[in-house]
Amino acid sequence: MKSFRRELTFHTPTRRAFLNITPQVEEALRESGIREGLCLVNAMHITASVFINDDESGLHHDYEQWLERLAPHAPIEHYRHNDTGEDNADAHLKRQVMGREVVVAVTGGRLDFGPWEQIFYGEFDGRRKKRVLVKIIGD
Amino acid sequence: MKSFRRELTFHTPTRRAFLNITPQVEEALRESGIREGLCLVNAMHITASVFINDDESGLHHDYEQWLERLAPHAPIEHYRHNDTGEDNADAHLKRQVMGREVVVAVTGGRLDFGPWEQIFYGEFDGRRKKRVLVKIIGD
Amino acid sequence: MKSFRRELTFHTPTRRAFLNITPQVEEALRESGIREGLCLVNAMHITASVFINDDESGLHHDYEQWLERLAPHAPIEHYRHNDTGEDNADAHLKRQVMGREVVVAVTGGRLDFGPWEQIFYGEFDGRRKKRVLVKIIGD
Repeated sequence: MKSFRRELTFHTPTRRAFLNITPQVEEALRESGIREGLCLVNAMHITASVFINDDESGLHHDYEQWLERLAPHAPIEHYRHNDTGEDNADAHLKRQVMGREVVVAVTGGRLDFGPWEQIFYGEFDGRRKKRVLVKIIGD
Repeated sequence: MKSFRRELTFHTPTRRAFLNITPQVEEALRESGIREGLCLVNAMHITASVFINDDESGLHHDYEQWLERLAPHAPIEHYRHNDTGEDNADAHLKRQVMGREVVVAVTGGRLDFGPWEQIFYGEFDGRRKKRVLVKIIGD
Repeated sequence: MKSFRRELTFHTPTRRAFLNITPQVEEALRESGIREGLCLVNAMHITASVFINDDESGLHHDYEQWLERLAPHAPIEHYRHNDTGEDNADAHLKRQVMGREVVVAVTGGRLDFGPWEQIFYGEFDGRRKKRVLVKIIGD
């Protein structure tokens, strides 16, 4: 069994953003030389998500609006986590809706995707350097 | 390390449905001959989910009602994704709540389940052919 | 390829609770002897979650309040699942938001975590014995 590890780094200028990271994951897979196995991609920070959906800007706008309705940023005093001096409690909630990680099948040396699947990094508390882990195991 | 791949195909007559796909996943596992490992089951489409919960019709009714409250289908003009000509923005949101995939342990040649765990395909934009991927790795 | 299986057992005195189970998962990993691979940790019951987030009591209070707003316990007659004699339909919903499982990379014999990642058991229908499965595969 082979294994491969790669960290990806992101620094979004805005508090919230969705970034298509499929090319970076595909590059890691190519470098790994793994043909059959599983590829884990996870946020290493707890106010960010990795998820699979559509690369369509209207949808990303809808996610943004919807998550803000489910878990509003303000008033920040609404959250006990923010009593610690943080203002990012909402980001910890939004991340749970969108998920921490995806596991993607690797078949014939490629990410084994359906027609529209793309991997996104979902940032909910950006404006600083944050990391995503890619771990691939297989043969 | 062995690996095994199987696609399952579904065509639900209704827009939304929950289907128990545990027997198909168990059949794939038997064919794989894998005794110890991990089994990934994921929706290949981005308006559908694979999740594990209870095979109880009242609960499925509750999921349906709850998801419709969290991410209503109508008015479809509410969503920017639907400006593309689609009417399924809500399905992309519902899928995030219920999840894209499950990873199940394989132990002694069986899905290593708790007492009530069953695998479901959650369709949120059906009435067409859609696929689920089963990928199993192990020995 | 090696594989390792461990069940963890919990019995929370309250209906809902969040328990940091990272030490137990780390102990399982040490016993496994696996240095490179993937570690699956999943609730074996369908009214509980395993998730990764911050070990901060204010945040756990926020999760509790937020989940109760998204999927209220009462009135229990609101849910068709509760017509079966149960009163835990809300727990099945809350578990979907927080997730069933996490998959964690194993690198150099350790859980390959970001700076604040900790694994939690989220109980939404406790006051009885329930189990979590740890399955680790790799070399």
